[in-house]
Amino acid sequence: MTTQSINRPPEKHVKVLDGQGWIGLIETMGSEVTAVNAARVSFGKMRTEMNDKDVTLLKYLIQHRHTSPLEHIQFTFVVHCPLFIRSQWHRHRTWKYNEISRRYTSIDMEFYNPTQIRQQAESDRQASVSQDDASWNGENSKIIADFNQQAFEVYEQLLENGVAREQARGVLPQNMMTTFWATVDLSNLLHFLDLRDDAHAQWEIRQYAQAIKSLIKDEFPTIAEVAGWE
Amino acid sequence: MTTQSINRPPEKHVKVLDGQGWIGLIETMGSEVTAVNAARVSFGKMRTEMNDKDVTLLKYLIQHRHTSPLEHIQFTFVVHCPLFIRSQWHRHRTWKYNEISRRYTSIDMEFYNPTQIRQQAESDRQASVSQDDASWNGENSKIIADFNQQAFEVYEQLLENGVAREQARGVLPQNMMTTFWATVDLSNLLHFLDLRDDAHAQWEIRQYAQAIKSLIKDEFPTIAEVAGWE
Amino acid sequence: MTTQSINRPPEKHVKVLDGQGWIGLIETMGSEVTAVNAARVSFGKMRTEMNDKDVTLLKYLIQHRHTSPLEHIQFTFVVHCPLFIRSQWHRHRTWKYNEISRRYTSIDMEFYNPTQIRQQAESDRQASVSQDDASWNGENSKIIADFNQQAFEVYEQLLENGVAREQARGVLPQNMMTTFWATVDLSNLLHFLDLRDDAHAQWEIRQYAQAIKSLIKDEFPTIAEVAGWE
Amino acid sequence: MTTQSINRPPEKHVKVLDGQGWIGLIETMGSEVTAVNAARVSFGKMRTEMNDKDVTLLKYLIQHRHTSPLEHIQFTFVVHCPLFIRSQWHRHRTWKYNEISRRYTSIDMEFYNPTQIRQQAESDRQASVSQDDASWNGENSKIIADFNQQAFEVYEQLLENGVAREQARGVLPQNMMTTFWATVDLSNLLHFLDLRDDAHAQWEIRQYAQAIKSLIKDEFPTIAEVAGWE
Repeated sequence: MTTQSINRPPEKHVKVLDGQGWIGLIETMGSEVTAVNAARVSFGKMRTEMNDKDVTLLKYLIQHRHTSPLEHIQFTFVVHCPLFIRSQWHRHRTWKYNEISRRYTSIDMEFYNPTQIRQQAESDRQASVSQDDASWNGENSKIIADFNQQAFEVYEQLLENGVAREQARGVLPQNMMTTFWATVDLSNLLHFLDLRDDAHAQWEIRQYAQAIKSLIKDEFPTIAEVAGWE
Repeated sequence: MTTQSINRPPEKHVKVLDGQGWIGLIETMGSEVTAVNAARVSFGKMRTEMNDKDVTLLKYLIQHRHTSPLEHIQFTFVVHCPLFIRSQWHRHRTWKYNEISRRYTSIDMEFYNPTQIRQQAESDRQASVSQDDASWNGENSKIIADFNQQAFEVYEQLLENGVAREQARGVLPQNMMTTFWATVDLSNLLHFLDLRDDAHAQWEIRQYAQAIKSLIKDEFPTIAEVAGWE
Repeated sequence: MTTQSINRPPEKHVKVLDGQGWIGLIETMGSEVTAVNAARVSFGKMRTEMNDKDVTLLKYLIQHRHTSPLEHIQFTFVVHCPLFIRSQWHRHRTWKYNEISRRYTSIDMEFYNPTQIRQQAESDRQASVSQDDASWNGENSKIIADFNQQAFEVYEQLLENGVAREQARGVLPQNMMTTFWATVDLSNLLHFLDLRDDAHAQWEIRQYAQAIKSLIKDEFPTIAEVAGWE
Repeated sequence: MTTQSINRPPEKHVKVLDGQGWIGLIETMGSEVTAVNAARVSFGKMRTEMNDKDVTLLKYLIQHRHTSPLEHIQFTFVVHCPLFIRSQWHRHRTWKYNEISRRYTSIDMEFYNPTQIRQQAESDRQASVSQDDASWNGENSKIIADFNQQAFEVYEQLLENGVAREQARGVLPQNMMTTFWATVDLSNLLHFLDLRDDAHAQWEIRQYAQAIKSLIKDEFPTIAEVAGWE
């Protein structure tokens, strides 16, 4: 028998956002040698392990943007993150998504309560800067956490009153956690990581991008090396 | 000189959600005769008006799912809608989007205050049913409107405290209105309308789907007829 | 050690076109239960085998066109087929392809010599009909096979003269066999099979579509049943 | 009244390959100011002309790879080119295509007879080099032209014998000219031009890429400047 608990990660996962969020790796198709075999359109007897020549070829492919052989390598992740991260993520249209629907269920609700509050940057309208004043941080952190709790209570009251879930959810803030499956090929994943683990990206989504790197780097050492992952 | 007001629709538009939302048509490329010329790979001298034979061909194409000639017809819309509608919309990955960023600006904020509250359906976990009790409706409508206002005040307070916009926005509820540009070809638009102006779709997004039909049906009469638009 | 022979299929394959073509299954990610877990956004403890309720859910998803959970199931095929089939196939833009490049190599060339010649249909400009006249068949089959051989000789002569492969290949006919890797998700694969194993599709590509069905039907029995595969 | 001649270009076009091929611009949606308005999610009163600030913004968008605002600008081309160029082109899966079908018609057939033959490069297996020996050039050019003519005669004979067009076309060489409609957004067009007007691309497809630049550069001067088009 199995149970469905939407807030428990699969075995292989990385926690982010002070443990409030996580990303798990559900399944992988292919490995680095897959890209090499695909680039050579090999079959019959295909290589099963990388040799030095294969490593050189793989580096050449990436450096010269011949990324189509990487598209035969696929990953399925499951992501537990705040709604505002979900919205940034879903702008990437080459991924395949399945998200929990709040039209359908109201179980297992959680909210992101940030513990480190960032200040608005003066110089760059889109940036934030860290702030070391513990009392300032505590005050604003509490405002957000209290509000998240209150939003949940208003939502619960609407449900008790008989309001439809699909309409009541309108009061739920973007700090609400959601969960989705996401499948992507390695070529488009590298593009995602390039944009989302970047100094211009929001801190929260960078944590997920870095978590992806740590989930796959051992199985994709040449990719990690060429892309300069730590 | 021009001014940028994000809450004012372009000239050609339809209001929805009691006038709180709207969708405007910014630009169109091609017409029904474009699909006919594309299907015949005609050029040099192309038809510029539909004749009876063209209408028959266009109907045949749609009925037999030869939808590739419809892909040369393009539309750019601008949509003003609640966040929860935006999230449903952006699941359609063949559209091209540009959305206002709340990391970047906090001007012109509005919230969707539904005036007609729907009850949760007993029979179907994903459905809602209309409710005629005016006092029940008024009570729940007020809860939502009051909460929207309160969320905005908490957000304003966080900004005053110096919290970064990208983090403060986490308290903004999914009833917040957003605005985005959206470009799509006619084949994928028909697929969208098929799914989103459907009895299983949420009432709010159906209003937008029906608005799209009313915006384009005069210029696409054969499509409207075959697809059974009223 | 491994060798690269582009004309030998992988272990799991089906021969088509009188054994002149074939399609092999290189790798699969996921199974029917993957779609069920994805639809429920399950994880932590996921189901690993289908029960009756899962089968019912999977049937519901397909019949109601909720095909996004099928997108987490992926297949990599390798296809050996004539160029004119390749061109029909590559019109499907949701697949990922890597094809042998005739700019790069001239090894292992083969040509499709059809043994059953079809007559042009009178009634339908796009259709063909089978012909039982053995002598008519033999005559036209020989014209094609002789011409294929001659084209290859002209190509070889151009190469001997020092003409660049990328330019010399212009004389190679569309009966030339090519080989490509092709990765696709189950949702888009079902769409492909729907269009290409159809009475309006060319006989040759139908053979490949039917071969795909026979390669995957044992592992996807519910899909096969709902889609009506024999 | 209109006639359908598949070998005549539309008014706005550029000839390539010694006048044997051409590419025409059928329709455009949007201009540079469209990208600027989309980036700002402007509407109501939108800018209709570029000012200095807009030019600066547009340059910033391109240099920082914020290319989504370019996706609202669309082009429909019609391309007349050899089959081997068509196959390279159709590997670009973000374009929308409609091609003349040789299952359906056998009218207006033409073949590419190259007048400048290139030699196979020794150093790079995928490259070719120009050759100045007029007699060598004439000899190989004649081999190709004669073979093209012969292939057409074999095809005609098969049709006379009653063989179905869809099967007879197998003898037609990749030098056969084809014609297709192609619609693409500006972001993906820039990516295409980047790859196809490149030293590693085949000479023939570079001519088409350069022709596209000359067709649109007057209407997109900022793009042309940033991308370094001559």
